[in-house]
Amino acid sequence: MDTAIVNTTLVTMRGDRLGVVDDGAVGVTDGELTYVGPGDDLDETAADDVVDAAGCVTLPGFVNAHTHMRHTLLRGGAQDVPEIEWMNRALGPLASHVEGEDAVVGARLGAMEAVRSGATTVCEYGDEVGRLVEEVYRPLGVRTVATETINEVPDDRSDLGPRDLYPFDREQGEAALARADALFEEYADVDLVTPMYGPQALDMVSLDLLHDVFERCREHDRDVHMHVAQGERERLQIDERYDATTVEVLDEEGLLSERLLAAHLHGATEAERARLVERGVRMVGNPSSICGIDGIVPPIDEYRKHGGVVGIGTDQAPGPGGHNVLRELRTASMLSKADAGDPTALPAWAALRVATVGGARALGIDDRVGTLEVGKRADVVTVEVDTLGTAPNVSRPFHTVVPNLVYASTGAEVRDVFVDGEAVVRDGSFVDADADAVVAEANERAARVFEAAESDWRDADSELVDRADEGWL
Amino acid sequence: MDTAIVNTTLVTMRGDRLGVVDDGAVGVTDGELTYVGPGDDLDETAADDVVDAAGCVTLPGFVNAHTHMRHTLLRGGAQDVPEIEWMNRALGPLASHVEGEDAVVGARLGAMEAVRSGATTVCEYGDEVGRLVEEVYRPLGVRTVATETINEVPDDRSDLGPRDLYPFDREQGEAALARADALFEEYADVDLVTPMYGPQALDMVSLDLLHDVFERCREHDRDVHMHVAQGERERLQIDERYDATTVEVLDEEGLLSERLLAAHLHGATEAERARLVERGVRMVGNPSSICGIDGIVPPIDEYRKHGGVVGIGTDQAPGPGGHNVLRELRTASMLSKADAGDPTALPAWAALRVATVGGARALGIDDRVGTLEVGKRADVVTVEVDTLGTAPNVSRPFHTVVPNLVYASTGAEVRDVFVDGEAVVRDGSFVDADADAVVAEANERAARVFEAAESDWRDADSELVDRADEGWL
Repeated sequence: MDTAIVNTTLVTMRGDRLGVVDDGAVGVTDGELTYVGPGDDLDETAADDVVDAAGCVTLPGFVNAHTHMRHTLLRGGAQDVPEIEWMNRALGPLASHVEGEDAVVGARLGAMEAVRSGATTVCEYGDEVGRLVEEVYRPLGVRTVATETINEVPDDRSDLGPRDLYPFDREQGEAALARADALFEEYADVDLVTPMYGPQALDMVSLDLLHDVFERCREHDRDVHMHVAQGERERLQIDERYDATTVEVLDEEGLLSERLLAAHLHGATEAERARLVERGVRMVGNPSSICGIDGIVPPIDEYRKHGGVVGIGTDQAPGPGGHNVLRELRTASMLSKADAGDPTALPAWAALRVATVGGARALGIDDRVGTLEVGKRADVVTVEVDTLGTAPNVSRPFHTVVPNLVYASTGAEVRDVFVDGEAVVRDGSFVDADADAVVAEANERAARVFEAAESDWRDADSELVDRADEGWL
Repeated sequence: MDTAIVNTTLVTMRGDRLGVVDDGAVGVTDGELTYVGPGDDLDETAADDVVDAAGCVTLPGFVNAHTHMRHTLLRGGAQDVPEIEWMNRALGPLASHVEGEDAVVGARLGAMEAVRSGATTVCEYGDEVGRLVEEVYRPLGVRTVATETINEVPDDRSDLGPRDLYPFDREQGEAALARADALFEEYADVDLVTPMYGPQALDMVSLDLLHDVFERCREHDRDVHMHVAQGERERLQIDERYDATTVEVLDEEGLLSERLLAAHLHGATEAERARLVERGVRMVGNPSSICGIDGIVPPIDEYRKHGGVVGIGTDQAPGPGGHNVLRELRTASMLSKADAGDPTALPAWAALRVATVGGARALGIDDRVGTLEVGKRADVVTVEVDTLGTAPNVSRPFHTVVPNLVYASTGAEVRDVFVDGEAVVRDGSFVDADADAVVAEANERAARVFEAAESDWRDADSELVDRADEGWL
């Protein structure tokens, strides 16, 4: 046995409840969970490395199921502006100055933030995502779902009105599809990297290309991760092009299936979402991002109640602030309660399942991770709960640590992070990565990007320009 | 000069904006701010203690303007239940077993959580609050606003229907009033303790007693802190007793004035709240608590937009989870955006003012604290922002640290906490208090309380009992 985690409360997620085990232990051999159960039945002397997790809860690592990490370099750059300004007048003028290595450094910062706060899987969604896999995720040792963005629309659409149809550039789409295909070949035998196709959204790709993508999925047993019903711009384009809604078009085309992971869905109706659940479509919600940008609460709790598979993601940092899954759970629960006017909406236990086994199912990797069970890969985190902000915890008549993890913890309590049995974080510090150096490099590069972007940012004239000049920022 | 804080970005809150100073410094002599400005103009060699705050933001300590800290012992004990069950069927059966010293330990845990995450003032609201002042707040060295609860209603109201008028026990009310009066005498010359009268709510006190309280306030220049329009139970009682709303009764009686700090206000109408602003009534909102218990978003942003003075509080831990003001700011902003369907609601800069100068004004202590200005008392915190979760930060074309403090920080980044010039927390650790011992004692006492309460808790039969038995908790 390589590692034994002992003296701990386990939250295993085994079965369809939380599967809490008091005085539990976990054994890991060759990256696999070889023991999960009462501490008394594990011989820890047989382990090379014994992790005393007294005062900690041990649970499956969190799954951050939807991110665009490169934007982390622009954290704090675009928020508190009207939805209509966010993309083109606030974020856009800054993002256009993020070049080459800047994106890698931004992604590294975001990925490390996610892992430090307990994520063992990060789904990265972006152009040329293979570069981030090689330069960020594999060196960090974190499990990643690499989603290559596929779109056929030119980046600069500033001349187009909202109902002017985007032109499709098939060549651009084919190139992205080829990059995605290459990822599947490249990582066929790499357990820590799972590619997905990322047709960006129905307004960004032609139906021809979309059918090509789904055809490959059926042929090779692969999955699709797509933004679906994400807001007004998409709705207008789809209405103009197809005289229908996104969900109607996808259903008509026979593309609503278990192969599809749909991000967002707040632009669909409840009836449409119920149809998605029926078709086996999975969902990922991004509460802080969508609330921060749009003032909208994603339908995570509704989708769950309809019986759908749902995971959670942090999307992008400029806006919601970051990539901390535990904080995202609290936000998701509070927003769901406010949105429903019901304090029982998205309770703590449901949120914890969304962040673990829910995310693993959403990404199609639940055969390997998402629960603590013998035979699964050892993606495991310990979270200290004997802290001023999360204590006290009792185990009778119920485990207060379940609500305390969701409502009381901040993410800083995460102590150890194991991915595939390897320690990535021990006692709160990265084993192999240098956090201070990454922060310093991000500061330097961000200073350069913001300086280079200042003139464009002023010309774009979002409300933030006035607020800055008035002394609010 | 006793202390110099150097190499830091200042967020002073001076004037009516944020007053950011790059490369700033603060000087402290005899507990007073004697220098606030550019670092170049401060001779740090004249200081006994030099705090190098490179990578940190330095700002006025946060004001947690409404708490009932004793309930922190029951953290994780009551949440995710219908509003109608929360008080009497979920929290009540546990709270009735919190005895004597338990309340002190719970309050100590909560107060230390608050201070560790940057609060330099905690407003404590409770019965016999003087005991907590002496046993918790003064030993901890934190500024406190001690609000003695005054009510005339017996604790056990389980026999009464919602429209059965509560009986008033004048003797009970007079005893509480006398305790409050004694606090004003006791702490007349103690700068760190500011008493307030705490008539609990209009359904809990007679008009006679309430007029007595306000009469004392006018005579001695004192203030009142009262729960106002906090929900359905209050509304029904006031309607039955006065055939009017709480705000109407208070206005009719001439009690809406600058002497009143009103907690909650979500049960009033917007027109009523506008009237409160006109009358000079101050407000404190408690977003996580009210959302967690009621699924309601407090009208913090609305009150601010009407021009009212507004602070923020964490109320109680069983439900929202804790007493971390920075986290509460993020929650407040996200909830306000969702509630308004508007991403510009409660922007970061406004939230930071609410938590500092807003809270100080709400509690009537802004002559001494709430901003960094020469002549004020030195309640100052440093927050590390060169972290994986809060970097990068740039100062041009605007200070991204303003949104990053609110949306990206978790509260764990707070590094140093000075109250009245004294270091309470340095480098993340309490100077004089033993956090581990407090956590351990809270765990022991909580285990005893929950065990003793189990039978009552089961008999009260909230939904949590079923959830626990089903394996969700």
